Amino acid sequence: MKRGERLGDLGEDEVVARLLRGFGTEGLLVGPGDDCAVVDEGRGPLRLLKTDAIIEGVHFLPTAAASQVGWKAVARVISDFAAMGGRPRHVLVTLAVPRDREWTWVAGLYRGIRRCLEKHGAVLAGGETSGLPEGAPAMISVAGEGVAERGKCITRGGGREGDVIGVTGRLGGSIAGRHLTFSPRVAEGGHLAAAGVSAMMDLSDGLAKDLPRLAAASGCGYEIVTEALPRHRGVEAAGALGDGEDYELLFTAPPKVWHALVRGWPEGLAPITAIGRLTKEGGSLEGGWDHFK
Amino acid sequence: MKRGERLGDLGEDEVVARLLRGFGTEGLLVGPGDDCAVVDEGRGPLRLLKTDAIIEGVHFLPTAAASQVGWKAVARVISDFAAMGGRPRHVLVTLAVPRDREWTWVAGLYRGIRRCLEKHGAVLAGGETSGLPEGAPAMISVAGEGVAERGKCITRGGGREGDVIGVTGRLGGSIAGRHLTFSPRVAEGGHLAAAGVSAMMDLSDGLAKDLPRLAAASGCGYEIVTEALPRHRGVEAAGALGDGEDYELLFTAPPKVWHALVRGWPEGLAPITAIGRLTKEGGSLEGGWDHFK
Repeated sequence: MKRGERLGDLGEDEVVARLLRGFGTEGLLVGPGDDCAVVDEGRGPLRLLKTDAIIEGVHFLPTAAASQVGWKAVARVISDFAAMGGRPRHVLVTLAVPRDREWTWVAGLYRGIRRCLEKHGAVLAGGETSGLPEGAPAMISVAGEGVAERGKCITRGGGREGDVIGVTGRLGGSIAGRHLTFSPRVAEGGHLAAAGVSAMMDLSDGLAKDLPRLAAASGCGYEIVTEALPRHRGVEAAGALGDGEDYELLFTAPPKVWHALVRGWPEGLAPITAIGRLTKEGGSLEGGWDHFK
Repeated sequence: MKRGERLGDLGEDEVVARLLRGFGTEGLLVGPGDDCAVVDEGRGPLRLLKTDAIIEGVHFLPTAAASQVGWKAVARVISDFAAMGGRPRHVLVTLAVPRDREWTWVAGLYRGIRRCLEKHGAVLAGGETSGLPEGAPAMISVAGEGVAERGKCITRGGGREGDVIGVTGRLGGSIAGRHLTFSPRVAEGGHLAAAGVSAMMDLSDGLAKDLPRLAAASGCGYEIVTEALPRHRGVEAAGALGDGEDYELLFTAPPKVWHALVRGWPEGLAPITAIGRLTKEGGSLEGGWDHFK
């Protein structure tokens, strides 16, 4: 360990990898590093745990509508439950905000939080508020507890060589507003999990950052057909790869499962698109979002 | 609702009260406002949920030893589990830290986190790291999941007129260092809960702030004997009332239970002291810590 190394030099993945060394994972079916932690108590549904924070100036602008900020803070966590094939039950909200912030901003924030919880059948179980000095960025940290059915909880690590790589919805250009208003893919995640997909995660840092993570967790490489990426209107391939904050689901499925999915995909759910396949090794994508770079 | 009201004018209790209006609490045995939320699934132990954040410059100084900061972040949450008579099982840690922070600081922080978890038999289930702009205060948010035995989970609201008010340990002067190094009173909380205390909470904002909260939740007033407050060496009564960050347990017990507690108090646990009693109404204390004032 060199003295003087700074987080910005190391990058997020290296920081997280170093932090997790030395921590035990007793009692965890899935530990740190996946979309949620999974606790198996030997009976009943599997229990999912997740925490996620958004920060003013990083994840939202000071000019964003407060209610949309609240929606986003909760929807990001729900998206992580969706990514395991699960659903949320209880959330805790920690708000750190400058003491000179107007009450109307905080009221709007919690309106958005409530709307998102109600839409997804989850309950605010508690939380905390802390005052920050004037000028500090507001931060909203949301911790959630949820459930997934036993045998239908999908991690990032189950993909196998030859599996089809798929995504829900369309990618790119979220900065135009979708990063604040997106719908977590809970129904899609549940359907994919029940159908037997092999690996799944949600796309938060951009496909170029997230697909290598899924492939690495599955011990595979990957190849994608850039032209096949489903893109939002006006988005180039580079945006679909690297803009981030899509909150769509990225998953892999054995070809048989993929074909069954396509044949029986329910109306009303976001569409799915094949974008490539898992390979034995290799793959290189550039772009995406690093929280320390 | 007036436009232009700021959080610093309202104060923490008013902000929290306003925020909680309109949120449902279906499925919660205890909702927001107590030390932990409590979920009753109808079988097995009760499930406790809690989140808590500490902020540089507010809860610790930039010069504090990073490992002590990590200890404190986790110990505060464990103290909340202790306050319900419960114990922690899994925690999630969210770290938001300026990108130019040195790796050694973060490494030290997680050493303290790990030490505190191991000491209390809890497991790091996951978490998140986010980069902040240079100069922003670091923030560590810890969410925890724990358990309490059915029938032995103590809220703030069960106190009755005539109950003895007691505290564990000694109060005041935590700023000298104890606020970073304290031991959450898990064993004491479990013993008190099993013995049948009527209400309990942990002392984080100071007795002057926290006792009125417990009394209000119990629908009572209170009177205390200031001279009876167990104080740390060199601490005046005002400090024992208002310094805050004691992380001792404040509890109430029917007189019979109190006498049984005193007679059978186990060696090795922090001592308990009677400091007053719950009354029908009234009581006034000044001091303590407000997060928005």
